[in-house]
Amino acid sequence: MAQSWGSFFYSLLDYKTEKFMIAKNKKVGVIFRLFQLGVIGYLIGWVFLWKKGYQEREEAIQSSVFTKLKGVAFTNSTDLGIQVWGAEDYVIPSQGDRVFFIVTNYLETPNQRLGFCAEVNTRKMQKVILHGHKLNRSLKLSSTDTGTCEIHGWCPVEHSHTPSKPLLGKSENFTIYIKNFIRFPKFDFSKSNVLSTTNKTYLKTCYYNKDHNPYCPIFRIGDVVHWTGHNFQEMAVKGGSIGVVINWSCDLDKDYSKCNPEYSFTRLDASKDSTNSVTSGYNFRFARYYRDADERTYRSLYKVYGIRFDIMVNGQAGKFNIIPTVVNIGSGLALLGAVSVTCQLTVKLLLFFLLASYFFLFFVSHFTANHFSSHFLREKLGLFC
Amino acid sequence: MAQSWGSFFYSLLDYKTEKFMIAKNKKVGVIFRLFQLGVIGYLIGWVFLWKKGYQEREEAIQSSVFTKLKGVAFTNSTDLGIQVWGAEDYVIPSQGDRVFFIVTNYLETPNQRLGFCAEVNTRKMQKVILHGHKLNRSLKLSSTDTGTCEIHGWCPVEHSHTPSKPLLGKSENFTIYIKNFIRFPKFDFSKSNVLSTTNKTYLKTCYYNKDHNPYCPIFRIGDVVHWTGHNFQEMAVKGGSIGVVINWSCDLDKDYSKCNPEYSFTRLDASKDSTNSVTSGYNFRFARYYRDADERTYRSLYKVYGIRFDIMVNGQAGKFNIIPTVVNIGSGLALLGAVSVTCQLTVKLLLFFLLASYFFLFFVSHFTANHFSSHFLREKLGLFC
Amino acid sequence: MAQSWGSFFYSLLDYKTEKFMIAKNKKVGVIFRLFQLGVIGYLIGWVFLWKKGYQEREEAIQSSVFTKLKGVAFTNSTDLGIQVWGAEDYVIPSQGDRVFFIVTNYLETPNQRLGFCAEVNTRKMQKVILHGHKLNRSLKLSSTDTGTCEIHGWCPVEHSHTPSKPLLGKSENFTIYIKNFIRFPKFDFSKSNVLSTTNKTYLKTCYYNKDHNPYCPIFRIGDVVHWTGHNFQEMAVKGGSIGVVINWSCDLDKDYSKCNPEYSFTRLDASKDSTNSVTSGYNFRFARYYRDADERTYRSLYKVYGIRFDIMVNGQAGKFNIIPTVVNIGSGLALLGAVSVTCQLTVKLLLFFLLASYFFLFFVSHFTANHFSSHFLREKLGLFC
Repeated sequence: MAQSWGSFFYSLLDYKTEKFMIAKNKKVGVIFRLFQLGVIGYLIGWVFLWKKGYQEREEAIQSSVFTKLKGVAFTNSTDLGIQVWGAEDYVIPSQGDRVFFIVTNYLETPNQRLGFCAEVNTRKMQKVILHGHKLNRSLKLSSTDTGTCEIHGWCPVEHSHTPSKPLLGKSENFTIYIKNFIRFPKFDFSKSNVLSTTNKTYLKTCYYNKDHNPYCPIFRIGDVVHWTGHNFQEMAVKGGSIGVVINWSCDLDKDYSKCNPEYSFTRLDASKDSTNSVTSGYNFRFARYYRDADERTYRSLYKVYGIRFDIMVNGQAGKFNIIPTVVNIGSGLALLGAVSVTCQLTVKLLLFFLLASYFFLFFVSHFTANHFSSHFLREKLGLFC
Repeated sequence: MAQSWGSFFYSLLDYKTEKFMIAKNKKVGVIFRLFQLGVIGYLIGWVFLWKKGYQEREEAIQSSVFTKLKGVAFTNSTDLGIQVWGAEDYVIPSQGDRVFFIVTNYLETPNQRLGFCAEVNTRKMQKVILHGHKLNRSLKLSSTDTGTCEIHGWCPVEHSHTPSKPLLGKSENFTIYIKNFIRFPKFDFSKSNVLSTTNKTYLKTCYYNKDHNPYCPIFRIGDVVHWTGHNFQEMAVKGGSIGVVINWSCDLDKDYSKCNPEYSFTRLDASKDSTNSVTSGYNFRFARYYRDADERTYRSLYKVYGIRFDIMVNGQAGKFNIIPTVVNIGSGLALLGAVSVTCQLTVKLLLFFLLASYFFLFFVSHFTANHFSSHFLREKLGLFC
Repeated sequence: MAQSWGSFFYSLLDYKTEKFMIAKNKKVGVIFRLFQLGVIGYLIGWVFLWKKGYQEREEAIQSSVFTKLKGVAFTNSTDLGIQVWGAEDYVIPSQGDRVFFIVTNYLETPNQRLGFCAEVNTRKMQKVILHGHKLNRSLKLSSTDTGTCEIHGWCPVEHSHTPSKPLLGKSENFTIYIKNFIRFPKFDFSKSNVLSTTNKTYLKTCYYNKDHNPYCPIFRIGDVVHWTGHNFQEMAVKGGSIGVVINWSCDLDKDYSKCNPEYSFTRLDASKDSTNSVTSGYNFRFARYYRDADERTYRSLYKVYGIRFDIMVNGQAGKFNIIPTVVNIGSGLALLGAVSVTCQLTVKLLLFFLLASYFFLFFVSHFTANHFSSHFLREKLGLFC
C-alpha cells in the first residue's frame, strides 16, 4: 500500500507528452511557423531591444530647477524719464523658480491716489467695474459725451493703450541660466545639467545651441523664442508662454557620462495655425506702494506684458534587474507557447467556416438523406485540427 | 543523405495536431465553453471597447495655465479708513499662476517701527517668541498682571483678533478667467480651453455652469466654493484651499471639436465630515515697507486670510495605432488559447481531489491489498483529462 | 437532417481531452513540476502578496501643501544697524507655498539711486554688464588701475563680498509647519498629515523625529539639513536646495488610521561626493523701492542666499476590486497553462540540439547510407516530446 502511494506520487513527475497526428498540410505549417517567428521577433525586437524589458524602470524623477537671468535694459519715455530694468525688476517672481515671467512691455500709471475720477470710456460696458466703486452720478465731460461713470478708486485711472513696440525689446539678448538637478531615487542616481566637466570660464562664454553647445546651460531668450518658431519682437508686444522641456532618458547600464539632458522648446499659448487672438498674450498688473512725507499712501500701477517660461523636467531611467528580465522572458515564452494553441483554434475556426459553407451549398442542392451526419464533418475537421 | 536532411527540415513545416479522446461529459463541456465566452467577452468588451486597446495612449500632457481675476472690493474701518482692493492687491502672487491666493479677510497692523514694546499676552507661552527678541526684564502692566515679556522688535505688536466677518465678503462675486493650453506631444495635438468658436462678446458675458455653459472659462468665486459643498461666507473668515481639476480625456480618432475640458471642484483642506478645526484655514503674513521723510524704515504688517486655488490639469489621449492593436489581439488570443490548457488543468485538479477523497474513504474501510495501485487511479483520471 | 445538425452543435459541448504517452523521464518531469511551482510562486508571492494584484490602484494623488514658518532672527551690522527678520521677511514667497525659500545670508546695498558710477572691478569681464548701461568713457581711479567702466545705473553698485559666516545662522532653530491634505479621487478618500488625534497642545510642543514623533508635522530647519547629511552652518553661507518627500502608501482595505505619511529628506543641489562647486548654492536679488520726500525713487537691493525647500508629495492607494482580481487570476492561470506548452517547446529544442549534435558527429564519422533518414531522428525526439 505504502509503496503503491509512493509510486503514485513519484509518477506525478512523469512528463506526459502528446501523440501527434501529422497532417501534412504545408500551408497551415507555414502559417504556424510564421506565427512563431512573429512572436519571437516581437519578444526580442520589441520587448527586449526597443522597450529594454531586461531593465527595471524608474519614472518618478525628482527634480530641482533654479534659474537666473542676466541682462539690463533701459526704457526712456517722455512721461517717466529714464528707467533701468535689472533682473530684480523684470523677473517675476525674483526667486529663480521653475516657472518665471520676464517683462518685455509695460504700461505704467504713476502716482495714483485714492479719490474720485472718471472711469475710462472704453471700459464702461464691462461686467465689473474695473478700477473702483461706481457712483450713481455720472460725469459729462462734454455735451456730446454719452456719459462717463464717476468712480471712487485709485486716480488717475489706467488708460488702456498698450505700447505697440515692446519697450524692453532689448530683452532679446538677456540670458537664462538653468540649473537642474535630478535624482532617480530607486537607483540613488543624481546628476546636474551643469556637467562636472564644465569649468567656470566655459559657463561665462557659452550659449546653448543644439548642434554646437548641447550641454551649455545658458540660453539667449531671443534664440529660445526663435526655436519655437516665433518672432521675439512680435511676441514681446502682447506676451506669451513658452515651455522648456528638459528630458533625461538614461540607460544606467551605460556610463555615467552618457546620461545627459535634452532640451526642447514649444510655445504653449498659441498653435502656429491659430487665428484665435482671444487666447494668446500674457499680462498682469502689480503695484508699488509708497508713502509721502505726510504718510499718505500713493502707488504706481504697472501693467506688464511678457513671456512666461515654464521649465518642465521629464525623465526615465532603466537599469538591469533580474526580476523584470525573468518576468518578461516568462511571459514571452507563455505567449510563444500559447501561439500553438491559438493557431489550432484559428485554423479550426477558419476550416470550420470554409467546410461549413461548402457543405451547406452541397446539402441544399443534393441531399435530404439523414446519413450525411455531423459526424462526417467532424471527421473531416479532425483530419486538419 | 542531403535529400533526407531536406525532407527533415521540410517536415518542420508539418502542422501537428492532437488526436482527441472525446469524453462526452456535458457539464465539463459547458464550463469550457463558458470560459471561452468569458475570455472573448473580456477581450472585446474590456480590452477593446472600454480600455480602447487599439489606441496608442499618451498620459504626459503638457499644460500651461494662466489665470486672471476681476473685481474690486472696498473695506471701511474706523482705524484705517476706506481701502480699495483691486486684483493687483488681493491676488497673491499677482502674476496669474496656476496656484494663487485671494484675500477674503485680513488684519492690518499699520505703522510698525523697530523698538521696544510688550509682547501680546496670549502668545507668551509659545515655543518661539513670535514678534521679536525677548529681553530679560519683563513689564508689569498692572499689579494683577502675571508679567508680560518686553521684546525688541516691530512695535506695536500685532493683536490677534481675526475679524469674525470677512472684510472682503464681496469677493464672492469676483471672477476667475482660466486660460489653459494643453499639448499631447506624442500626437502633436494642442488645444485651449478657450474654444476657437468663442468670440469676445461671449467671453464678456458668460459664467461657467456645468449644465448651461460647460465651456465658458470664467468662474464666479462664490459658485466655485458652492460647488465644493461649502459656504463662501463661512470659508472666507479663516480661509481654505480649493482644487480645480481640469480633465482632458480625448479620443483623437474623433473630431478635433470633441476633445473638450471637464472641470471639477473639491475643497482640499477639509473633508466635509471633519471636526478637525486645527487643520482647516489658510493665512499668512506679509509686510509693505516704507521710509519716512528722514529715511527711517517703517512698515505695515498684513495678516491675510483667504482661499488658495490650485488648478490641476490631468489628461490622456488615445489614437489608433497598429502596434498596440496587434499586441492586444495577440495577447488576447494567447489568453484564449491558454484557457483550454488551463481548463484541462483545473478540471484535472478538481477531479483528482474528488476522486482522491472518494478513494481515500474506500481504501480505509475495505482494502489492504496491494493490487489496487495508483495505476488504477491514473487510468480513471485519464478517462476525463 | 435537423436532428443531425442539432447533435453536431450539441457535440460542440463535448470536452475533448488528449491521450498522453507517458515518457518516464524523471529529469524532464522534475523540471516541468519546478516550472509549475515557479509560476504558482510568482502568482501568489509576487502578483498577489507583493504587488497586491487583487486591488485596484490609484496613483493620481491630489495634494495641497501649505507651509508656515516660525522664528525671529536679528542681524546687527555696523553699516545697517539692527535688523529684525520675521517670517514675513525671510520666507519668499510669503504665501506658504509648496516651494519656498528661506534667507540664511544676505548682502544689502542700501539707498541706491539712478546715476553715474564706476562698475565694480571684478565684474568688468562678464558678457553682460550687470548693473547698468556701459558708457564709452572709463574711469581711472588710480594710475595703476587698468581702467574701470563708468556705468549709468543704480549707484552705488553692489560690491560682491558675500559674508563668510551666515548672518541668519540662528535660522537653524526656525520651524516649518507643513499642512498636507491628500485625496485619492478614485476612492473618495482624503486625509491630512496633521492627524485628527493631534491636539493643539501637542502641535505647540512637538518636533518631528523619525523614531519618536513620526507624525508631528513640525520640523526644525537645522534637523532637516542634518538628516540630508549636510551641515546647516556650512550650507547657510551659499545656500542650497532641499527636497522633502511626503510619501503616502495606503492600503485602503485596512483601517483609516493605518494610512499615514512618511517623510524623507534629500539635498537636491549637490551630491555628497560632488566636487562641482560651480553648481551648488542658491541666491537671487530683489529690491525694495522707496520714494523720498521729493517723490524721487531710491531703493535697497538685497542679494539673498538661502535654502529652498521643495515639498513633493507622492502617493498610491489600493483597494480590493473584483475586476483586477479576476484579470490577474485569469492571466495567472493563462501563464500557468502556457507553461506546459512552453515546457514541451523548450524540452524539444534542447533535446533537438543535443541529439542533432550527437548524430551529426555520428554521421560524419560512420554513415553515408541513405536509410538513416530524418524519420529516425523524429521518432527519437517523439519519444521524449
